[in-house]
Amino acid sequence: MSDTTTNRRKLLVVFNRAPISYAREGGERVARRGGGGVVTALGGLLAHHDVTWVASAMTDEDRAVAAERDGSFVEETANGAAYRLRLVAHDPGTYERFYSVFANPTLWFLQHYLWGLGAAPDFGPELHEAWSDGYVPVNEALASAALEELDREPEAAVLFHDYHLYLAPQLVRAARPDVVTSHFVHIPWPEPDYWHALPEGLRVAIHEGLLANDVVGFHTDRWRQAFLLAAGHLLGARVDRDAGTVEHRGHKTRVVARPIGVEPAEFDRLREDPAVLEREAALAARRPEQLVLRVDRTDPSKNVVRGFRAFALLLERHRELHGRVGMVALLAPSRQDIPLYADYVAEIEAVVREVNERFGKDDWQPVELDIADDFLRSVAGYKQFDVLLANPVFDGLNLVAKEAFLVNERDGVLVLSENAGAHAELGDWALTVNPLDVSGQADALHAALTLEPGERRRRAAAIREHVRAHSIREWIDAQLADLDAVRSAG
Amino acid sequence: MSDTTTNRRKLLVVFNRAPISYAREGGERVARRGGGGVVTALGGLLAHHDVTWVASAMTDEDRAVAAERDGSFVEETANGAAYRLRLVAHDPGTYERFYSVFANPTLWFLQHYLWGLGAAPDFGPELHEAWSDGYVPVNEALASAALEELDREPEAAVLFHDYHLYLAPQLVRAARPDVVTSHFVHIPWPEPDYWHALPEGLRVAIHEGLLANDVVGFHTDRWRQAFLLAAGHLLGARVDRDAGTVEHRGHKTRVVARPIGVEPAEFDRLREDPAVLEREAALAARRPEQLVLRVDRTDPSKNVVRGFRAFALLLERHRELHGRVGMVALLAPSRQDIPLYADYVAEIEAVVREVNERFGKDDWQPVELDIADDFLRSVAGYKQFDVLLANPVFDGLNLVAKEAFLVNERDGVLVLSENAGAHAELGDWALTVNPLDVSGQADALHAALTLEPGERRRRAAAIREHVRAHSIREWIDAQLADLDAVRSAG
Repeated sequence: MSDTTTNRRKLLVVFNRAPISYAREGGERVARRGGGGVVTALGGLLAHHDVTWVASAMTDEDRAVAAERDGSFVEETANGAAYRLRLVAHDPGTYERFYSVFANPTLWFLQHYLWGLGAAPDFGPELHEAWSDGYVPVNEALASAALEELDREPEAAVLFHDYHLYLAPQLVRAARPDVVTSHFVHIPWPEPDYWHALPEGLRVAIHEGLLANDVVGFHTDRWRQAFLLAAGHLLGARVDRDAGTVEHRGHKTRVVARPIGVEPAEFDRLREDPAVLEREAALAARRPEQLVLRVDRTDPSKNVVRGFRAFALLLERHRELHGRVGMVALLAPSRQDIPLYADYVAEIEAVVREVNERFGKDDWQPVELDIADDFLRSVAGYKQFDVLLANPVFDGLNLVAKEAFLVNERDGVLVLSENAGAHAELGDWALTVNPLDVSGQADALHAALTLEPGERRRRAAAIREHVRAHSIREWIDAQLADLDAVRSAG
Repeated sequence: MSDTTTNRRKLLVVFNRAPISYAREGGERVARRGGGGVVTALGGLLAHHDVTWVASAMTDEDRAVAAERDGSFVEETANGAAYRLRLVAHDPGTYERFYSVFANPTLWFLQHYLWGLGAAPDFGPELHEAWSDGYVPVNEALASAALEELDREPEAAVLFHDYHLYLAPQLVRAARPDVVTSHFVHIPWPEPDYWHALPEGLRVAIHEGLLANDVVGFHTDRWRQAFLLAAGHLLGARVDRDAGTVEHRGHKTRVVARPIGVEPAEFDRLREDPAVLEREAALAARRPEQLVLRVDRTDPSKNVVRGFRAFALLLERHRELHGRVGMVALLAPSRQDIPLYADYVAEIEAVVREVNERFGKDDWQPVELDIADDFLRSVAGYKQFDVLLANPVFDGLNLVAKEAFLVNERDGVLVLSENAGAHAELGDWALTVNPLDVSGQADALHAALTLEPGERRRRAAAIREHVRAHSIREWIDAQLADLDAVRSAG
C-alpha cells in the first residue's frame, strides 16, 4: 500500500481534540501539543498530506483563537509541517453536557460494559438534556464547520474519529451526498442488547449517524462483528456479514477492522532520551528483584483495582515472593472532574494502602502507586518490567501492550486481558486472563514470574517483531486505501 | 398438538424446587404447595403423565424426608394426582454457595445485565468456591439422582428447567448417551461478550452443559438467537441459524422459542374468589380516580425504583393529575438473605418516602407500597388497574403482563418494557418503554392515562384474547412435541 503514502491527498480530519491547544503564559499566547493517542496516531498525516483539522476549542485561549479567526487558519507541527486548523467554540454548558455527561461517562461506560443496567444510566431529564442540548449541538457545530471547510476544499475526503462524533457524519452526508467519509471508532462496540442502555431514539441515531459514512473502522474484528450485528438488530439494516457491508437508507457502508500500531522510531529515540534514562535510573535503584508493571489512565475500564487485588492474592499464595517482587502502577490521571472517575482514584488509593499495610515490611513495599501525567516515566517503566499486566475490563485496543515491548530490556512477559482489542494480535504470545477473574490473574502473574527464560525470550521477541512489522504507518495507509477504494468504486 | 396431551408419557422433571415443601407444625409433618411460576407452570404435567420430579431438599423437614426415603416416593397433588418425588439433600454450606452466591446473584445478575463489569462480579476465591464447591456439586447430586430414577424408568424423557441446573444435562448424557432431554431456560440469555463476566472455564461449562440436551428452550426468539450466537462465539460450535440447531462434540441440539402462557380457568376462578373480592373491596375503597399498578418481586431486574421515579416525574410534569392518580406497587419479597436484594428493598422504600413527601397531601398519598407474599392481593390489583407498569430492565418473559389482563375490568393499558420477553407477543397492544428511560416512562404513563377509551378497549381485548388463545397448555404441549420430534428423528 506504499502508494497511499506517496500520493499527497486533501484530507479533512474531524476529531474533537486538536493537534495543539492554546494557553496564555506571562501574557503571551503559547501553543502546546495536544495529548491523547488519537492525536499522536493521526499526527503522521500532517506531514504527508494537505490536512484541515476540525476540532472543538477546549481552553479559554482556544476559544479566544476561534473568536479571532474567521474559519480555518494555517498552523505548524513541531516538525514544521503546515496544516489548516479549524477550532469550533461551544457554549461552556453545552460542551460540559456533551463531554462530561454524555460522551463520558455515559457512552464510554456503555461501550466498555461498565454500567450495571439495574441502576445506571438513569435517563431522567438530565441525561436527555445532555443528549439534546449537549451531544447533538456539539455534533451539529462540528459538522457545520466541516461543511464550511469542504466548501473551501470540495475534493477532500473526511475522516471522522471516535465516539464524540457519531452524529456528525450524517449531517455532512445530508448536505453533501457525494462526499467520501470514513469514521474510526477507537473503543469497543457492544453487542445489540447492551445498546438498550440507551433509549431507542438515541441508539438508532448513533448507528444511523455512523452508517452515513462510506467506511466504518474498528481496531478488531470482534468490535466490527458486533457493529454489523447491532446494525441488523437495532435498525433492521441489510447486513452482508461475509462482505462486511451494511445497506441502510440507500447508502452502503463498508465495515473494517484496522488495528492501530505505534511508531517504532519514536520508541527507539525515547529509549535513549536523557529524561527517560534519568527516570529509569531512579526506578532501577529502588526496584525489587522482579517487577510487575502496569501503565494506564485512571479509568474504571482499565481495571486497576482488580489488578492490585490479584497481586495481593499472589502474595497470599506465594510467601516465597515476599521481598522479591513488587508491583508498580504508573497511572495518568483521567477525567477527574467526572465524579465516577474521581471515586475510582479513591478506590485505587484505598486498595494500595490495604495491600501495603497487609504485606509490607520495613525493607519492602509491595506496591507502588504513581499517579502523574508523565509519559517519559512510563517509558522508563517499559524498559524495566519483568511482567506487564494489561487487564482491562474491555479495551478498544490497548496501546501499552504494544509500546512496552519496543523498549523492554528484560524479556518481559505480557499478561493480557481476553477483552483487550490487542488480544487478537498478541494473544498467542501472552498469558491470557479474564479481567474479572482476580484469582486467575494471580495465577497468571505467578506463571509469568516463573516462566522459563527461553520461553520468555521467544514470546517477547515475537511481540516486538509483530509491533515493528505493523506500525502506525500501516494503520494510516489502510485508512487511506479504504477511502481510495470508495472513490474508485463510486 | 392435542395428541401430546392425550398420550400419557413417562417424564422425569429435574428442577431445583419441588412441587411441595415439607414443614413441621405442632409436631406434625405438613406438606405445602411449592411457590414460584415454574412449579405452577409444570404442575399441569402431574395430572396427565407419569412424572418423577427430582428437586433439592430446601427445608429442614425436606431433608428429614429425604433421609427417611431411599430414592423416590409417591406424592399427591392437591387435586389427587399421583407422582413420584425425589428429594436430594445437600450440605447446607454447599447449597448456600450454590443458591445464594452462584445462582443468585451471580448468574441471575449476569443474565439480566445487572452487573457493571468494572466492579462486579469479582472472581476471587469466594466466587470460585461458589462454583466448584457449590454450583458444581449440587448439579452433580441432582444429575446423580436423575440417573437413579432413570434406572427405575429407563424410557422416561428428562425435562431440565432453569438456570440452577446448567451442568446437570451433560452429566446425565455422559452416563446415558441415548436419553432424550430438553432444558428450558426461563430467563434472558445475554449476548456473547457479556458472558465474559465469567471466566472462560465457567462460561464454556455452562454452554456445553446446555448443549448436551436434545432441545434447549427459551421464552422468546431474542434469547434463542443470543444463545445460538453465544454457542458459536464461545465454543466454536457449528450453528445453523436458519434451522436453529447447534452441533457440538458430535451432538446436535435444537434451540426453540416457546413463550409460556397462563391458565385462563384459574383466573376465571380467582376473579370470584372470596379472598380476592375482600381484598378488591378494600383497594376499591381507597383507590384514586386512576390507578397505576405494578406487581413484581423485589428484584433489581424488575426496575421498581425507576418506575417510582417515572411516576414522580409524571406528577412533576402534570399537576392536573395530583389528587386524581395514584400508584400502587404490590411486591413479593425476594431472596432477602442476599445482601444485594435486601439493599434493593431499602432503596425502594426510600424512593417511596421521597415521592410521598414531595407530592403527598393530607387527602392524597401518591404512592402505596405493599411488600407481602400474597398472590390474592395481586389478583385484586389486576382487576382494578387503569395502567399496568411492567418495566423490567430485562425479563425472560413477564407473566404479570399476561395474568393481569385476564381479570382486569377497566380496559387497563399496558406500559411494557422493550426488554421483557412478553414484548414479542404483546408489544403491538402495549405502550413500549425503554426501562432505563425514566423520562420516557413518565411520558408513557401520561399517554396511557389519557388514552382514548375506544383504543383502551381495543388494546385490552386484544391482549386478553391473545393470552386466552395461548394458554399454559400450549406451552406444555410444545415441550412434549419437541421431545417427540427428537424420538422420531432418533
